[in-house]
Amino acid sequence: MKTGNDRAVGGDTIRVAVDLGERSYPILIGADLLSGIGGRVRDLRPGARCAIVSDETVAALHGGTVRDSLAAAGVEFVEITVPAGEKSKSHRVLEGVLSQLLDARLERSDLVLALGGGVVGDLAGFAAAIYKRGMDFIQLPTTLLAQVDSSVGGKTGINAAQGKNLIGSFHQPILVLADTGVLKTLSKREFAAGYAEVAKYGLIDDAAFFSWLEAKREEIFAHGPALAEAIAASCRAKARIVSMDEREGSVRALLNLGHTFGHALEGFVQYDASRLIHGEAVAIGMAQAHRFSNRMNLASGDDAARVEAHLVAAGLPVTVGAIPGDAPEAAALFDFITQDKKVSGGKLTFILTKGIGRSYIARDVPPDEVKAFLEEDCRR
Amino acid sequence: MKTGNDRAVGGDTIRVAVDLGERSYPILIGADLLSGIGGRVRDLRPGARCAIVSDETVAALHGGTVRDSLAAAGVEFVEITVPAGEKSKSHRVLEGVLSQLLDARLERSDLVLALGGGVVGDLAGFAAAIYKRGMDFIQLPTTLLAQVDSSVGGKTGINAAQGKNLIGSFHQPILVLADTGVLKTLSKREFAAGYAEVAKYGLIDDAAFFSWLEAKREEIFAHGPALAEAIAASCRAKARIVSMDEREGSVRALLNLGHTFGHALEGFVQYDASRLIHGEAVAIGMAQAHRFSNRMNLASGDDAARVEAHLVAAGLPVTVGAIPGDAPEAAALFDFITQDKKVSGGKLTFILTKGIGRSYIARDVPPDEVKAFLEEDCRR
Repeated sequence: MKTGNDRAVGGDTIRVAVDLGERSYPILIGADLLSGIGGRVRDLRPGARCAIVSDETVAALHGGTVRDSLAAAGVEFVEITVPAGEKSKSHRVLEGVLSQLLDARLERSDLVLALGGGVVGDLAGFAAAIYKRGMDFIQLPTTLLAQVDSSVGGKTGINAAQGKNLIGSFHQPILVLADTGVLKTLSKREFAAGYAEVAKYGLIDDAAFFSWLEAKREEIFAHGPALAEAIAASCRAKARIVSMDEREGSVRALLNLGHTFGHALEGFVQYDASRLIHGEAVAIGMAQAHRFSNRMNLASGDDAARVEAHLVAAGLPVTVGAIPGDAPEAAALFDFITQDKKVSGGKLTFILTKGIGRSYIARDVPPDEVKAFLEEDCRR
Repeated sequence: MKTGNDRAVGGDTIRVAVDLGERSYPILIGADLLSGIGGRVRDLRPGARCAIVSDETVAALHGGTVRDSLAAAGVEFVEITVPAGEKSKSHRVLEGVLSQLLDARLERSDLVLALGGGVVGDLAGFAAAIYKRGMDFIQLPTTLLAQVDSSVGGKTGINAAQGKNLIGSFHQPILVLADTGVLKTLSKREFAAGYAEVAKYGLIDDAAFFSWLEAKREEIFAHGPALAEAIAASCRAKARIVSMDEREGSVRALLNLGHTFGHALEGFVQYDASRLIHGEAVAIGMAQAHRFSNRMNLASGDDAARVEAHLVAAGLPVTVGAIPGDAPEAAALFDFITQDKKVSGGKLTFILTKGIGRSYIARDVPPDEVKAFLEEDCRR
């Protein structure tokens, strides 16, 4: 995978391998990688054409870099732009993307480039998964959240009226380029939301990484060298779990720490980004998972407090009450949880924890305990 | 796979294995299999719930048999019914099916039963493929075409405005039950259309099977014992090819004999079933493939004539002029062909033949030859 572009950035590019047999692929992390995409596409798929799928915000910020690089490498491309925001993960927008791929007469051997955050990655990746029964795609994640989470692992899909990510495919990219330079264009709020997923890897099973994050948080938020290291560590953690369990039959569920509560909160606010974005929902959800585990006498209150303190220092919400607007109600959240796709055989599955870095998959959590916890927790 | 149901039909059930590693599954062919579906579901997936996806016509004819069998076996189910016809292979109908699966709160471990012809199988199979990133399904094909072709091999999907089957997934069923009794409810026209795909397996690579069909055609159309044998031979032929090449990287393309021309014809009449149904399009397309091969000096005119004679005897059309309504124009058909998904790297790929049972994949067929052939052939 070493190309002229790696040399151009002075060898600072970090490479993380995702080992999935014949579906293995590398994640490259470093500054200024987007400007080298043309050469990489030409090397990986000589003669292939590309569709750059992006949203209006990202296309305006970074579309030019990608277009210029593809043009310089002699790669033909079309551009498909969708509205920014979670609402683009819909049947209607998906149909529009597919129709534009067809109008461009892209073939199975061509490539989709997903340039954007988690929404674009999930949407474009799913379009690639079902276009002519499957074409390859490259993830070019432009948010911290997408770089450390959604671009890695092959989950693609859209939302339904009934909930988030309920329609989709497992479809692995052939390459992920995480350009750390583009993260400077993120708002503080978006950056913090992505950081919630970074912290998650410490909370799942790596207490030392969580301690390192406590020490390096300011450097990471200042875009210092620790940022690329934190992204690489996160990708390594996710890649390791995904390699063990690509289709979420077992340990991959650990990646859902904070997500069952978090998805319910996102559902409650109807994906209104002015009130709550995904990483914020995960931050609240992770804090709730620690409080719920403490309530179940699984983990100490000190650990829950330490998690809350770190997330708050990063500018993240940790309570349901921190969401602006009408306060979510326990009954409504509980209803969202029972429709969540991680329900199996009528029992509730949660990621609970015995303390920082000691998360585990708890199957058969008593629904009444969850209800009682939510009633108490929603009043905080 | 032997169950009480196999014994109940006196051991006349034929079993064909589709060998795809961990995605292997059996096809069972015999009379009165639908009435045993409940016991099979209970045995295969204890505790699973089912969604019966069907169309209005088939639900009225056979829905009761399936419902009664599931109820008798204590299997919970919901019913999802779509309009009959190719137009149901659309984004809109797919979204409706997915929404009903979600409203029924089906889980990944539950089952979809695709009860119907090729349209229902493709639609329901695709819905299963992308519901919560993939759930299992069983094919209960009720047309001859679906029993010998579309229910076997895992191709699922919908149509786009730009062409047929352009959006979809490879998703294998866990079981196919081909109940030969239900074929008695087919019109002569539908039965003949399915027979076109049976004849195709002879034309691809089995001249002896084609000769056997010439001898047994009347018995097959009279629903005699040769019918189940013809279905089993067809399934075996398809299973063998699919096992070699699940995702159509190579030999699986042979199954498209007659389909490149045929899809263009279907596109031209805008899937208007009053003018042309899929098997009829394939019959014309196979005759065209033989005539085109003869024109290219690859195969004898005698073979082309023998193919035409057999298809005509089965009540099938073999020329473009046999389609009722406005005659398709060569230029329009050519345009449909270049948008077909089997185009690769800008070259035209066709299944051509050196004679009966001697088909092969011809890559890089000169577009001008195709154009010239169509101009001549459309005047026949």
